[in-house]
Amino acid sequence: MIVDRPLAAGVQRHLLDVDGMSRASIERVLDLATEMREARAARTHRSMLEAETVGLAFYEGSTRTRVSFELASKALGATVVDLSVAGSSVGKGESLVDTLRTLERTGVTTLVLRHAASGAPYLAARSTGMAIVNAGDGTHAHPTQALLDALTLRETLGSLDGRLVAIVGDVAHSRVARSNLHALVRLGARVRVGGPPAWVRAFESWPGVEVADDLPSTLAGADAVMALRVQLERAAGSGVPSLGEYIRRWGLDEARMRMANPAAPILHPGPTNEGVEVTADLANGPRSLIGRQVENGVPIRMAVLAQVAGAA
Amino acid sequence: MIVDRPLAAGVQRHLLDVDGMSRASIERVLDLATEMREARAARTHRSMLEAETVGLAFYEGSTRTRVSFELASKALGATVVDLSVAGSSVGKGESLVDTLRTLERTGVTTLVLRHAASGAPYLAARSTGMAIVNAGDGTHAHPTQALLDALTLRETLGSLDGRLVAIVGDVAHSRVARSNLHALVRLGARVRVGGPPAWVRAFESWPGVEVADDLPSTLAGADAVMALRVQLERAAGSGVPSLGEYIRRWGLDEARMRMANPAAPILHPGPTNEGVEVTADLANGPRSLIGRQVENGVPIRMAVLAQVAGAA
Amino acid sequence: MIVDRPLAAGVQRHLLDVDGMSRASIERVLDLATEMREARAARTHRSMLEAETVGLAFYEGSTRTRVSFELASKALGATVVDLSVAGSSVGKGESLVDTLRTLERTGVTTLVLRHAASGAPYLAARSTGMAIVNAGDGTHAHPTQALLDALTLRETLGSLDGRLVAIVGDVAHSRVARSNLHALVRLGARVRVGGPPAWVRAFESWPGVEVADDLPSTLAGADAVMALRVQLERAAGSGVPSLGEYIRRWGLDEARMRMANPAAPILHPGPTNEGVEVTADLANGPRSLIGRQVENGVPIRMAVLAQVAGAA
Repeated sequence: MIVDRPLAAGVQRHLLDVDGMSRASIERVLDLATEMREARAARTHRSMLEAETVGLAFYEGSTRTRVSFELASKALGATVVDLSVAGSSVGKGESLVDTLRTLERTGVTTLVLRHAASGAPYLAARSTGMAIVNAGDGTHAHPTQALLDALTLRETLGSLDGRLVAIVGDVAHSRVARSNLHALVRLGARVRVGGPPAWVRAFESWPGVEVADDLPSTLAGADAVMALRVQLERAAGSGVPSLGEYIRRWGLDEARMRMANPAAPILHPGPTNEGVEVTADLANGPRSLIGRQVENGVPIRMAVLAQVAGAA
Repeated sequence: MIVDRPLAAGVQRHLLDVDGMSRASIERVLDLATEMREARAARTHRSMLEAETVGLAFYEGSTRTRVSFELASKALGATVVDLSVAGSSVGKGESLVDTLRTLERTGVTTLVLRHAASGAPYLAARSTGMAIVNAGDGTHAHPTQALLDALTLRETLGSLDGRLVAIVGDVAHSRVARSNLHALVRLGARVRVGGPPAWVRAFESWPGVEVADDLPSTLAGADAVMALRVQLERAAGSGVPSLGEYIRRWGLDEARMRMANPAAPILHPGPTNEGVEVTADLANGPRSLIGRQVENGVPIRMAVLAQVAGAA
Repeated sequence: MIVDRPLAAGVQRHLLDVDGMSRASIERVLDLATEMREARAARTHRSMLEAETVGLAFYEGSTRTRVSFELASKALGATVVDLSVAGSSVGKGESLVDTLRTLERTGVTTLVLRHAASGAPYLAARSTGMAIVNAGDGTHAHPTQALLDALTLRETLGSLDGRLVAIVGDVAHSRVARSNLHALVRLGARVRVGGPPAWVRAFESWPGVEVADDLPSTLAGADAVMALRVQLERAAGSGVPSLGEYIRRWGLDEARMRMANPAAPILHPGPTNEGVEVTADLANGPRSLIGRQVENGVPIRMAVLAQVAGAA
C-alpha cells in the first residue's frame, strides 16, 4: 500500500496493494496521473527521476504492463534495467530474496515486480530497501490496474460516489478484481459481482460487495460493467461450467449490456478472449473503455513511480 | 511504401515495401542516409526524434536488423521499447492486431515489425495509427534491406542507370530479393536472376528482369552480384538439387566471379553460409561489400525512421 | 589484459584477463572505481561515454554481471544494446566471429562478452576492432570479478601486501578463482587454495600459491576467505566426494571461520548455494562481504569501460 502520510516527508515507499490506501491517497494518485499525462505529452518531467534506477522484474509474461512501466520510467528520465530476460540467475536456483538483494546492491532503487506467488512483493518490501511496486502477484493484487481502472471510470462517470459497478467473471482468482474491490469501495462506489457460484460466492461477506446469481441481476442498475479475463485453461473444472455454458450465461454483448443503465461503459483488463467475456463488437464499440484503460496505464505508472521515489 | 508527397505535408507514414516508391523518393532516402551517417558520427541529431517512441516487434529472430533499428532509434533520441522478449502476451493468444493496438495506446508512435506472415505490416498499417516500418514479412518484402543494398551499390558503382545486377539463389522465397527487384529496376538497373529453376522461373514475366539457367549466363556482363542466403532446411525438397549440387552449380568463389565484369562486387544480406553461397575468401576479399552493407544498415534506418516520423 | 601504457596514449584497448596487468595498472583500476562510485552518486560523468556504444553479448545466462555492466554503461552515458535475447542470429548458425564483426559494423565500440568457450574474448579481440571486455569465458577468466574482489578486500584489509587469502572449493573449474589468483598475487598477497584434491592439486606448481589438504590447514592464518560456487550438477563425479561429503569437509560456517584469523571476512562471487559453500548465517553475518562485492561491481565496470574507451 501507499502509506498515507504528508508528501513532504517523502513517504510513499511502496505500492503493494490498494487495501491500505485512504480515499484521499487514491485520489491524489489519480490527480497526479492526470498531470503526468500532460507532462508526458509536453516532455516537461524528463529528468524528474534521473537519480532513480527502475528494475523491471517480470517473472510472469506480460506485454502491456511491462511496456507501460518501461515507458513510464523513461518518460520521467529514470534509468531502466529489464530483469525479465530468459536465462537470468533465477535459473541457477537463487532465491527470490537473494536475487532482489543483489539487484538492490547494483543500484536499483525501485523494483517493479510481477510474480506468480501471492505476497511476493511484501516479501520484497520486508527484505530490501528498494521501493517496491506490485505489478501483479498471484491471485492477490494488481494495484496499478485498479488505479488505472479508477481513473478511467472517474473520467467517464465523474465521481464514483454512490455509483454501482458490476464485475463479471472469475472474481475468485482475479488479482485485478480483488484490487478493484478495494479501490472502488474506498472511492464510494457500490460493487456487485456476478459469475458462476464457485467464482463469486466467497465475496458474500465482503463489506460493500453484493453477489448476484445471474447476469440480469448482476447488471441491473449498473453504472459501469467490468468483465474479467477467463483463464481458458482453468474454465474446465472446479465446479465451473464449460466454456460454452459460461458464454451462454455470462458472456457480454451489446444486447445484454442493455440490462445495465443506459450508456453504461464496459471495461476489461485485457487481453480479451473475444467472443468469450465480451464480443468483438462490444469490445470495439462505443461503450468500450478498454482502449482507454490501456492509455491510462502509462500516466498512472508515472504517478506511482514518482510517488514511491518521493519525487511527487 | 513511402508515399511520395512533399515533405512539408509530413507524409511518409509507413515503409511497407519499395514497390510504391518513385525513383525520386528512393534517392531521397539514400541521400538522407548519407547525411544521417555524418550526423551519427557527429552526434548532431540526438534529439531529432525525442518526441517519438519506437517499438521493436520482432516475431522472428534477428540480430543485425533488430540491433540496427535499435541503434538508429537511439542515435536520433527516440525512446525505444523492445517487444521481442519471450513470454509476451502473444503467448496468451491475443491477436496481432489487438497487441499492436495496445502498443499504440501505450504511446508507441512508430512500430518496426518483423513477422512470418507476408502482409502483416499492411494489416498493422490499416489497423492502427502508428507509423509502420516493415523489417521483413514472410517471403514478401524487406524494404530497408533493399534500400541499404541500393545505397551500397550506389556508393560503389555510382549511378545504377543501365547497370546489370545479377541475383543468385532462392529468389522465389526471398523477401530480400523481391524488395531488391523493385528498388533496382526503379533506379534504372537491369536485373538478372539465376538459380535452380524452381527458385527463379516465376520471375520470367517480371518487367525488367531476366532469368538465366546457369551461372555463366547469370554472371556474364554483371556489374554487381548479389548472393542470397540458402535456407539450409529448405534446400532439400521442392524440386531443388541437394546442397552439394547447389554449391557445385551456383556456389560463388573468386574464380567464378571472374565470369562477371572486372571488379564486380559481391553482396549478400547475411548471415552467410560460408562455403555454400560464397566462399570465406570471397566474403572477406576485396570484392566483398558484405561488411559495407551492414554498416549502411544504421544510417538507412535512421533515414527511414526520421521520414516516417515526419522529421526529415 | 589491460596493457599497461601511459593513459595519454589512450591505450587500454581490452580487458581480457588480469594476468597481463601490472600491480600499478590494477591499482589504477581500483582507484578509478572509487572515483566512479562517487561520480555515479553525484551523476557527474553522465556524458563521459556518450560517443560509445556498448554491446552486451551474454551467451551464458547471468543476472548480476549483465545488470552491473548495463548500469555501469548507462551511468556513463553510453548507448547500450543488449544482444543476449533469445532468438538472435546465433540460431542461424552464424559463427561467433561473423556475429561480432556484424556488431562492430553496426557501430558497437565496446563489446562485453560472456561465452562458454575459454578464449572466446581473445578471438574477439583478434578478429574485430572493438574494445573487448571479458565478462567470463569458460573456465578461464573473469577479470572484472577479480578486480571487484580486490577492491572489496582492499577496502576491508587495507593493503593486500603480505596478507593471506584462502580460496575454498572448485578452483580447477573456476574462472573466478583463476583471475583472483593472478590479481591477488600481483597485489602482494599470499594465496592458499583448499578443496577436494581433484579441484586443487593442479595449483601446486603455481607461483605464490599454496595447496592445502583440509579445511583447518586451508584457513590457518588466513586474513580473508573466499568460497567458490559449487556447480551442483558437477559435484558428483570426477573423483570428487558427494555433496554431503563436500559440505562436511569444506562447508563454511561461523564456527569454522574461527580457524582463520580473527574477523577474517568471507567472500563469495555469488549466487551462493546456501548451506553448501557457506551457511545462510555466515553469508548474512558480520564477516560477510558478499553484498559489498556486488556493490563494487558497478563502479569497477564503470572504471573498466572508461579505460577501454580511452576516456579515463
